[in-house]
Amino acid sequence: MTKLLPQIKSPADLQTLSDEQLQNLTQEIRDELVRVMTARPAHFASNLGVVELCLALHLTYDFSKDRLIWDTGHQVYPHKLVTGRYDRFHTIRTRGGLMGFPHPGESPYDLFMTGHAGCSVSTASGLKAGDDLLGETGRQSVAVIGDGALPSGIVFEALNNIGGMGQDVLVILNDNKMSICPRTGGLANYLDNCRMTGLYQGGKRRVNQVLNAIPVFGSMAQAALEQCRDGLKAFFKDGMLFEELGFRYFGPIDGHDLPGMRRMLANLKTQKGPLLLHVFTNKGHGVAQAAEDPVTYHTPPVFEEVGPNRHVVSFRKGGAKGYTDAISFALHEEMQNDPKVAVMTAAMCQGNKLEKVREDFPDRFFDVGICESHAVAFAAGMAKAGMKPVVDIYSTFLQRSFDQIFQEVCLQNLPVVFAMDRAGLTGPDGPTHHGVFDVPYMRLFPNMVSMAPGDENDVAPMLHYALNQPSPISIRYPKTNLEKVERTDPVTPIELGKAEVISTGDDGCFVAFGTLLSTCVAAAKKLKAEGLNVGVINARFVKPLDKETILKAVETLPVVVTVEEGTIEGGFGSAVLEAANAAGLDTRNVVRCGLPDRFVEHGERTELLAECGLSADKLADLVRSRRAAETQVA
Amino acid sequence: MTKLLPQIKSPADLQTLSDEQLQNLTQEIRDELVRVMTARPAHFASNLGVVELCLALHLTYDFSKDRLIWDTGHQVYPHKLVTGRYDRFHTIRTRGGLMGFPHPGESPYDLFMTGHAGCSVSTASGLKAGDDLLGETGRQSVAVIGDGALPSGIVFEALNNIGGMGQDVLVILNDNKMSICPRTGGLANYLDNCRMTGLYQGGKRRVNQVLNAIPVFGSMAQAALEQCRDGLKAFFKDGMLFEELGFRYFGPIDGHDLPGMRRMLANLKTQKGPLLLHVFTNKGHGVAQAAEDPVTYHTPPVFEEVGPNRHVVSFRKGGAKGYTDAISFALHEEMQNDPKVAVMTAAMCQGNKLEKVREDFPDRFFDVGICESHAVAFAAGMAKAGMKPVVDIYSTFLQRSFDQIFQEVCLQNLPVVFAMDRAGLTGPDGPTHHGVFDVPYMRLFPNMVSMAPGDENDVAPMLHYALNQPSPISIRYPKTNLEKVERTDPVTPIELGKAEVISTGDDGCFVAFGTLLSTCVAAAKKLKAEGLNVGVINARFVKPLDKETILKAVETLPVVVTVEEGTIEGGFGSAVLEAANAAGLDTRNVVRCGLPDRFVEHGERTELLAECGLSADKLADLVRSRRAAETQVA
Repeated sequence: MTKLLPQIKSPADLQTLSDEQLQNLTQEIRDELVRVMTARPAHFASNLGVVELCLALHLTYDFSKDRLIWDTGHQVYPHKLVTGRYDRFHTIRTRGGLMGFPHPGESPYDLFMTGHAGCSVSTASGLKAGDDLLGETGRQSVAVIGDGALPSGIVFEALNNIGGMGQDVLVILNDNKMSICPRTGGLANYLDNCRMTGLYQGGKRRVNQVLNAIPVFGSMAQAALEQCRDGLKAFFKDGMLFEELGFRYFGPIDGHDLPGMRRMLANLKTQKGPLLLHVFTNKGHGVAQAAEDPVTYHTPPVFEEVGPNRHVVSFRKGGAKGYTDAISFALHEEMQNDPKVAVMTAAMCQGNKLEKVREDFPDRFFDVGICESHAVAFAAGMAKAGMKPVVDIYSTFLQRSFDQIFQEVCLQNLPVVFAMDRAGLTGPDGPTHHGVFDVPYMRLFPNMVSMAPGDENDVAPMLHYALNQPSPISIRYPKTNLEKVERTDPVTPIELGKAEVISTGDDGCFVAFGTLLSTCVAAAKKLKAEGLNVGVINARFVKPLDKETILKAVETLPVVVTVEEGTIEGGFGSAVLEAANAAGLDTRNVVRCGLPDRFVEHGERTELLAECGLSADKLADLVRSRRAAETQVA
Repeated sequence: MTKLLPQIKSPADLQTLSDEQLQNLTQEIRDELVRVMTARPAHFASNLGVVELCLALHLTYDFSKDRLIWDTGHQVYPHKLVTGRYDRFHTIRTRGGLMGFPHPGESPYDLFMTGHAGCSVSTASGLKAGDDLLGETGRQSVAVIGDGALPSGIVFEALNNIGGMGQDVLVILNDNKMSICPRTGGLANYLDNCRMTGLYQGGKRRVNQVLNAIPVFGSMAQAALEQCRDGLKAFFKDGMLFEELGFRYFGPIDGHDLPGMRRMLANLKTQKGPLLLHVFTNKGHGVAQAAEDPVTYHTPPVFEEVGPNRHVVSFRKGGAKGYTDAISFALHEEMQNDPKVAVMTAAMCQGNKLEKVREDFPDRFFDVGICESHAVAFAAGMAKAGMKPVVDIYSTFLQRSFDQIFQEVCLQNLPVVFAMDRAGLTGPDGPTHHGVFDVPYMRLFPNMVSMAPGDENDVAPMLHYALNQPSPISIRYPKTNLEKVERTDPVTPIELGKAEVISTGDDGCFVAFGTLLSTCVAAAKKLKAEGLNVGVINARFVKPLDKETILKAVETLPVVVTVEEGTIEGGFGSAVLEAANAAGLDTRNVVRCGLPDRFVEHGERTELLAECGLSADKLADLVRSRRAAETQVA
């Protein structure tokens, strides 16, 4: 049989297919997802879940002019496959290849590069407002948002504003059962029919009458609803919450029933005002293991396909330990020893490897959902009460809490510990997930203490130190395997604003803030082989900075290279320049290395670091050329 | 008659008063508010509105152990008056005096310094969680939040989390009619009775049955509800929205009926789980003009009391024009000339002086409420559609959008213009309102262009420039009167990354980013009188920085003083150090002046600037002493 997928060069080609061919196409798309995922870790279960939804959308709308935003964006693979990117799909998440999120540079069908959750409703609303003002009133705006992103504050802000304006925006709630909410089946169809046939127009009260008249609703459905995840419960009571915000609610409908969804969307396309369509999908649909365990299969390690029935087997379970493991292990220890320690995560229990913490200390574990702003203000309240809260959130997602770090934590000088996971380049996810701004944004705030472990040895002591510190304090650590740096002396204990001198040398020194310490040690080793004695300092703190140790290096050595895995604008190196300037030092011997003032795209972390001059070779080159230039001058 | 208010040394003293005395006390509190406000501009109408609510709370709870958070916090004056601060009340909003917001340093009854809206629900929840974990389960948690703050995303995040946890938290919605929502009177009382007598326990459906049985509800109340402000409409339909989130809803009740509120609170105090009490208050209650025009009387200019019936007359209408006037005037011009220009404000139409814009261009004016995150993502959508959106938000409140500036604007490289009002020290409001972090946080992001007008001459040209620039761009300007700097040459046009040289001199130069330019000119004038020729550069851009002009000064002059009204950590001066370092320059002649790394409290802006070394005298001193030291060395 001729494959259909390679022939889909644009969504327009979908229109030529019969229902049966479309059904086959869903299989082909899933086959392609499995094929590529066997070679490379990528978002898997979520993409398997939206195949029919994606096709129904492209069959109903013309997104070369209509507007489609996939919220968060990791479920965009089927969309990529039918918008002219089938040929390049095998390159996904590799350097220079397709991005794992929407990317306007790849296709006009990708309007926004998304990755942080919850903004789709706002941007869809902005697009609609702009199109209307520019006279393009025929353009329709659709946001597809998952049940996980829904509780984000910005979604509520947007729904409330759209409802207030009565704007023609369609929000599709892709409820992929991560809410543990059972599907309501026949009842849902009945409800849809009621609503679509105009009974709805009579208003909420009549719908309620209908609901009450269905005996099954009062018992079975009610019981089913009780099982919903608590934090999301509100959204599923026959859409009342959305109705209150000014939306008309449709659904829930089966997100794997392609003809049914096409009928629904065709109808909605003709409706005016704010519309919300509730779609139930199965994460992992079509691959048994992924559907059964969508958490594991969210971004699984590479796997192989075994046997005829698309049975897949994961590889590489239990590899090397990373910084995330070290922090979560240390946190577990601290919680065991100190009943005041509590932890907040923002829907990243697995990413932050907090499963064991959740299991062993359920009353001190708070997963607030994708609500980073609330997480920080909530932690501030706990700290005020006398607890020792740890906010465990990825560096890039913590940006959502910038204002709460300011007002609720630093302004009150409360002892909240920020464990900033994924600080630095995160690799294949790309710029929405790289954590490159936290060094400057954390050191902005009065009262904040800001640290980074140089290697595994620093992790547990830093967390312990942080939990016994009377003020706000942050620890940034990368998404990489644990490293241990060779030392001649024993590891020095953590002391406020004190760096650790790993080695010294008359020819210069590297001052590393965070994990590039091992890279610096490697660079120094290379240089040593060439007769250049270059020391290495493990800075540990950017605020307060160890002025004594670092400025002595600036004052006495021919070259001092500051190294950080973060933007160079206002970061660690700038803090060194500021301190040296205040001390009246000449800083021409200081060279700042960090990430450039541009968005670094996706790729393997080591590839990206080298590209940014942050490999041992590049760092050694830098010192070598500096020393050579001086010799020349002399 | 002996005055009661001076005798209230702590809330415990309230318990000794009879109902009649309490009634008299409400009068005395209002008298005191009027008396102090005649001397000083301060938050007025909102405080007049919460007198009874404040007393009812302190009479019902013991906030020496129970927890009370006043959201946003400008309505905290009555609370200050009954928590031992009557004697010092006349010092409010003056340097060294009481703060106009809650301040933990003033009183144990002020738990959090608030000022940015919407966080009270999160912190109250955190306090409750902490108290419970520490075994202090008897402590109750109360958050008082206004209808204006309610649509903030973080409030929804917090309500959803509290609802999910079933936590014992009382949220009081202080609905002060700024929502234009009519009071429902008798119906409300009836509803309260229904709910309080246990009928409620039977669940929402039975309450609905009761509602349907009240004939008046279907007609009068329904009509009244229709008049509610659109964006808030959802909240007032018999509290369904709160119920959906897991709260039990009580009210609405009359917030000026002290005995009624005491009865309600006494009852709620015995209830478990998440509770929401909806209270109607009149902003300006007790002062006719303030009640009739709460917008003008939000923070009125000083006024005098005339005649017997507390009739007040405002002074000082139409004073000097400020930067806010200049921007809003320029914006109006641009909107007149270019139909693509649109503006977003976050509930600050008056503060941003956008009334005329709203009036003349209603379809391009978007007040999104206190939803800064949504405002920016919405603007990004509009920009993507081809519009030229201007996000007009105070510097400090824009911190709420940090992540959207990153992802939705800079990462997509969309031409959104940020007009950052109130950048720098804002004076009597204090640290929650000072805009001191925006220089470093804006220059962090790739693609962002970041400007500040040196004086009035720069304002309109900068806005015009910004609106014709293809990338994200920000303009920061202070809360102060417009200034015009003396120049010998004509004003130079705005050009990307180009500074303006105001004057030159061999003895050094000031490089000002923003409005301290006039202070620098004044300092240079002083020095000139002493025979020191010090030039002045109007930097205009921090990103991209005018390396040519500024580095030439660093290279050739004996002293270069960078001056900015923002934190010195990572700000404009640091950008100069970074550029000079990259160019291989010695920077020992560079002195960075800016705001220190601590929270600057409230006071008059000029007082605070002088305190931070940012007066003409202090800047002149600096250069004088530098030059003297060099002469000594020489």
